[in-house]
Amino acid sequence: MAPATHVDADRLRGDLLENGRFGAVDDTEGHGRTVLTGSAADQAAREHLIETLEGLGCAVRIDQVGNIAGRWTPSDADPEAAPIAIGSHLDSVPRGGIFDGPLGVYAGVETIRALQAAPEVVTRPVEVVCFTEEEGARFGRGLLGSSVAADAYPAAKALALTDETGTTLAERLSAMGMQGTATITPAEWAAWFEVHIEQGSVLERAAEPIGVVSAITGVWNGTIEIQGRADHAGATGMDERADALMAGSAMLTALEDRTHEVVATDSAFATLTVGELEVTPGTSNVVPERVQAALDVRDTDSAVIEELSAAAQAIGARIERQRDVEITVEETQSVAPTPLSDRCQTALTAGAAGTPPTLPSGGGHDTMHIAEHTDAGLLFVRSRDGLSHTPQEFSRWEDCAAAVETLVGAVRQLETR
Amino acid sequence: MAPATHVDADRLRGDLLENGRFGAVDDTEGHGRTVLTGSAADQAAREHLIETLEGLGCAVRIDQVGNIAGRWTPSDADPEAAPIAIGSHLDSVPRGGIFDGPLGVYAGVETIRALQAAPEVVTRPVEVVCFTEEEGARFGRGLLGSSVAADAYPAAKALALTDETGTTLAERLSAMGMQGTATITPAEWAAWFEVHIEQGSVLERAAEPIGVVSAITGVWNGTIEIQGRADHAGATGMDERADALMAGSAMLTALEDRTHEVVATDSAFATLTVGELEVTPGTSNVVPERVQAALDVRDTDSAVIEELSAAAQAIGARIERQRDVEITVEETQSVAPTPLSDRCQTALTAGAAGTPPTLPSGGGHDTMHIAEHTDAGLLFVRSRDGLSHTPQEFSRWEDCAAAVETLVGAVRQLETR
Repeated sequence: MAPATHVDADRLRGDLLENGRFGAVDDTEGHGRTVLTGSAADQAAREHLIETLEGLGCAVRIDQVGNIAGRWTPSDADPEAAPIAIGSHLDSVPRGGIFDGPLGVYAGVETIRALQAAPEVVTRPVEVVCFTEEEGARFGRGLLGSSVAADAYPAAKALALTDETGTTLAERLSAMGMQGTATITPAEWAAWFEVHIEQGSVLERAAEPIGVVSAITGVWNGTIEIQGRADHAGATGMDERADALMAGSAMLTALEDRTHEVVATDSAFATLTVGELEVTPGTSNVVPERVQAALDVRDTDSAVIEELSAAAQAIGARIERQRDVEITVEETQSVAPTPLSDRCQTALTAGAAGTPPTLPSGGGHDTMHIAEHTDAGLLFVRSRDGLSHTPQEFSRWEDCAAAVETLVGAVRQLETR
Repeated sequence: MAPATHVDADRLRGDLLENGRFGAVDDTEGHGRTVLTGSAADQAAREHLIETLEGLGCAVRIDQVGNIAGRWTPSDADPEAAPIAIGSHLDSVPRGGIFDGPLGVYAGVETIRALQAAPEVVTRPVEVVCFTEEEGARFGRGLLGSSVAADAYPAAKALALTDETGTTLAERLSAMGMQGTATITPAEWAAWFEVHIEQGSVLERAAEPIGVVSAITGVWNGTIEIQGRADHAGATGMDERADALMAGSAMLTALEDRTHEVVATDSAFATLTVGELEVTPGTSNVVPERVQAALDVRDTDSAVIEELSAAAQAIGARIERQRDVEITVEETQSVAPTPLSDRCQTALTAGAAGTPPTLPSGGGHDTMHIAEHTDAGLLFVRSRDGLSHTPQEFSRWEDCAAAVETLVGAVRQLETR
């Protein structure tokens, strides 16, 4: 049984509703917000965070791409000890929700408050971090701030990115007074934690309020191109056709079957998605000449991703032999899975009131970049109906508080070592 | 063995090349033309036809929608006897070929020449007909002139149709001096014949120069709508999805299988085509929420068309039960098959040098409308690679001549009765 954590669920709820007022959008069914990087809403949200952190005695610094870190150095701590960092992001997609991002930032704030209220000594600094442009909704590149902090993307390139109007990130940051000169780097951190809503339904179906993320899945993206022959729909018999769409349908059906097999035997969380498919010429009375589709394969295990992308090649080759079409499957992008630190997973599990399940994350998070440089942990909170990126996004306040209690427990596991 | 027909293959070739100069487009691989209704090219092609018909002693008349008929009344004929009519159209799609349409009109011209050159008496008038806007390429409604002649579409509506610039058919016809006051009606004809290129590959694969059309297939058009649920491609497991595109692929695959069964057992020429398919939201990392597709089913037998459209409903219902999606299949248009007259089929077969195969027509032709009012025959000429509506459209000159020889023989079969 974990000790009392001094986490105040109502205070956390107040933080999220307060932050949700910045960029708030009308919605009768929920709390929506639009907080694009560099907007007035973003500036207000950042200023409120800085004020809150300073109110807790944190030393706040800002780096050149607008990432914010507020460090609390407890009186009992060695000020030179590597801090434990906790954070996420405050930007949103257009008409997004109030949980995706802010929950992770204010989980850090509430953790500091809880640690300050508790009688136990704290031996390390604790730092709350807010990364810039996680959603990529304004400058087109997601996980931007964390990728710069983790040295995975050059600051100069990030600052030169432009929005739809041609304005650079540098100009936007400078205009809102959020371009600093400090260094914020995960290489200095003893550990990193991010609390995030699940954006899926695994926890909801398992009736679990929180879950410890074992790994962030890798993503393999590719294109499928099928070249058949356009023919008159009436004058061309079924046996004379080279129908690109019928070939595509056969291919998708076979790919889906294969993925279900892999899910049943190798990896329960493997996914395969064809989200885009275009038919040329796309006229009701012409046999389709060409199909172009986008393939998205994810798993926590590179070998499973490779197995499914190889299956796409093999199924394409088989259908090419069976039908009078040409099929090419080409990789466009491949991001390896990010396994998360055992030390952090153990700390989170030990910090929880019960025994939270572990699950993979199918979406990318700032934690992906941080995990390259320090032990990183990611804790998911149950999402109602798996929804996110909409005002209907919702996680119960008590689930959010349970996540912060777990986080406080995890910090205690690590801070004395 | 049919008697000598006095058909001159070189003369027919000259007619088609001469007519092909009107609206000619550059193409290194063939003879292309663009003849939109009411264009300068259309006017020139019509004037050349009228001149040619008058040169053969035909009395030319024009009706209010610009249909042209040139009647030759042989000296031995009863001028009051119902004529045998032969024709097609002179308009084309943009960058179309020189055979689609003109072959049927000049087959009529060459038939009159051959009958005039032969020693045998001809006891009925013979009429060459050119219908307006068969392609629907300018005013958006195909088979327009023949539908008005057959009382299937009101002349006033046809004349009020507008092109992209807002100009009406009436204005275009009047500007080129091709709006008349005569009556051209299939109800007056003893019989009708159209020679047309096949626009498919049945004759080419059978190594037959010509084929007698048994029926014009009916067409059933419908929409397929599949409503699933949009979900994050990474955060949503395979078993939690309501993927509209995977449901659609399963449906198309099942429909294709079913059509192949029908082809093998009930009707060799049955076709089923999905030429249009759209995926919503159409983003690579989102599970498809919605699929909208267009279904085209054709056969010469209404019962087979009904069987396949019912199969689409049944397969949709089955997939709806198996997957968490809603599927609706709705009819948008249904055109019944047009069986062609046994009398005309027999006359064409008897008129041919050998024994031509019979085959259905999967595309619509002016003959569809004419067949509602008189015995109608349609004779197909082998198309190279099944191509049409392109400058690469080509039928061998000797095949075209064989068709006219058959036509002359068929007219002889009918004209004395």
